Amino acid sequence: MNKLAVVAFGGNALLRGDQKGTIDEQEQNVFDTCSRVYELIKRGYDLVIGHGNGPQVGNVLLQHEAGYNVFGIPKMPIDVCVAETQGSIGYFIEQQMKNVLLKDGIEKDILTIITEVFIDRNDPAFSNPTKPVGPFYSEEQAMEMKSQNGWSFQKDPRNRGWRRVVPSPAPTHINNVKSIEQLARSGAVVITVGGGGIPVFWVEENKLQGIDAVIDKDLASALLAKEIRADEFYILTDVPNVCLHFNTPQEKRLKVITVDEAKQYLAEGHFTEGSMAPKVRAAIYFVEHGGKETIITEASHLSNPDAGTRIVRN
Amino acid sequence: MNKLAVVAFGGNALLRGDQKGTIDEQEQNVFDTCSRVYELIKRGYDLVIGHGNGPQVGNVLLQHEAGYNVFGIPKMPIDVCVAETQGSIGYFIEQQMKNVLLKDGIEKDILTIITEVFIDRNDPAFSNPTKPVGPFYSEEQAMEMKSQNGWSFQKDPRNRGWRRVVPSPAPTHINNVKSIEQLARSGAVVITVGGGGIPVFWVEENKLQGIDAVIDKDLASALLAKEIRADEFYILTDVPNVCLHFNTPQEKRLKVITVDEAKQYLAEGHFTEGSMAPKVRAAIYFVEHGGKETIITEASHLSNPDAGTRIVRN
Repeated sequence: MNKLAVVAFGGNALLRGDQKGTIDEQEQNVFDTCSRVYELIKRGYDLVIGHGNGPQVGNVLLQHEAGYNVFGIPKMPIDVCVAETQGSIGYFIEQQMKNVLLKDGIEKDILTIITEVFIDRNDPAFSNPTKPVGPFYSEEQAMEMKSQNGWSFQKDPRNRGWRRVVPSPAPTHINNVKSIEQLARSGAVVITVGGGGIPVFWVEENKLQGIDAVIDKDLASALLAKEIRADEFYILTDVPNVCLHFNTPQEKRLKVITVDEAKQYLAEGHFTEGSMAPKVRAAIYFVEHGGKETIITEASHLSNPDAGTRIVRN
Repeated sequence: MNKLAVVAFGGNALLRGDQKGTIDEQEQNVFDTCSRVYELIKRGYDLVIGHGNGPQVGNVLLQHEAGYNVFGIPKMPIDVCVAETQGSIGYFIEQQMKNVLLKDGIEKDILTIITEVFIDRNDPAFSNPTKPVGPFYSEEQAMEMKSQNGWSFQKDPRNRGWRRVVPSPAPTHINNVKSIEQLARSGAVVITVGGGGIPVFWVEENKLQGIDAVIDKDLASALLAKEIRADEFYILTDVPNVCLHFNTPQEKRLKVITVDEAKQYLAEGHFTEGSMAPKVRAAIYFVEHGGKETIITEASHLSNPDAGTRIVRN
């Protein structure tokens, strides 16, 4: 049996901050990323892909806002917007991954699965929304929506206006893991938990409902890797290794660290919140819950089995 | 082994023409439709669902238009917009179908699969675009886009302006059928070919690309039913039976007809183009390509195994 790997990368591997996001730009970015991820298939892994959607869901929220203002089309809540981006980004990835594989004459089913991810309605994140989403508003508009919908708003630190903030609760369970594992084990490449997954919860016993929240994509991918019993979990980022004293003269690249070491470095504040810190936490989560190791590295290093920072059991 | 059925229904089973399309309206419509489709599961079928996206992709195209005009977000081509609706509609269906099943204590994986559908770039439809999509434009705007992008436009018969028309080519192959069949046969409910599928073609040998076109959802579902070797194909519509002399004093409900009879009635002009005629053609296609029978009926009749119009082999 092949080893099974989950690989997670950010929405900005597909739509870079310095680009407008035309179809040609996105297709090229996705093709490049898929060419690198293909190295894991060459190395003999069965593969499941998780991905972010930050820039893309930002655009969808703006399109819904504009569509409402111009044409009166009802805006959809965030769970539905995430579902839209799972469709479009998954389509980009599966098409370009297919093109990458076909260049080498490899035929595989490559499937995007729309993925709901369960969260706990009592997660403390719901009393402290932190994740900015959607358009900038004037203070007046923001306060009006706050009183109408109960939404939370934050003033933008760069003074571009007020922006809605939503909770970022922890994922508790990935929907359809049985089918995802079965597909991947049968040799298909599965694209799932896009944007961290569509957040859903049990509004009543046996009644599922979406909710306005955003799930961290690395944490969702780590949970996925645990639930489908993956052997390894890869988190792609824009540096080849996790570093101590990052961007200082004392910078030190980490090669292999244990979960306990990773926790210590986290506690010492070596890793930036909103950037490397959540990746290290996701890495730890997987190894602490049965995974063999998590590898954090840059996509271009995937051909080298020894590359990256490896977080292993104590 | 259970019998395997494909059931196809329209995007208007989810977003009715007389509704604005709020999240609450759509969730209720989807729940109602799923409650009816559940009858097929109760009757012992493994199930694959195909669905339309007419009203939904119309909204997405308008949102992209408005998002471009207001925020400068690049508009995506139709294949990407179809992918977005596969995500959002699939999410609605899988969530409400899960809620329907859980009410009876049934746990199943219910999966939405983003689905590319192959078309032939030499399909005669490409020299005769007929399917109106997206916003209405002034004649001046339309002519400008025509000369810029080579798009085709048609004047709206109800004088609301000019509208882009795109080709509606025949589907030649459904992507990932092996995995779809395997999932359905393992007991999962699979939602696929949303909106007739994302139209793609071989732009070069071994290079797949999307294209601005719209595939008929009944025809795509018929091809899917053939390719996954379904036993039966259900097409849901808003009347319980196909009729001869529909809406006249001579109206006659059809119960069981052969493929040859169906072809004859088609040739005699009994069925409206854009409504019942494409459904009857899709029904014929399935039975002529190995299917046992196609049933055309209203969702509320699915509990009755003898309901509807059955198109059978000669």
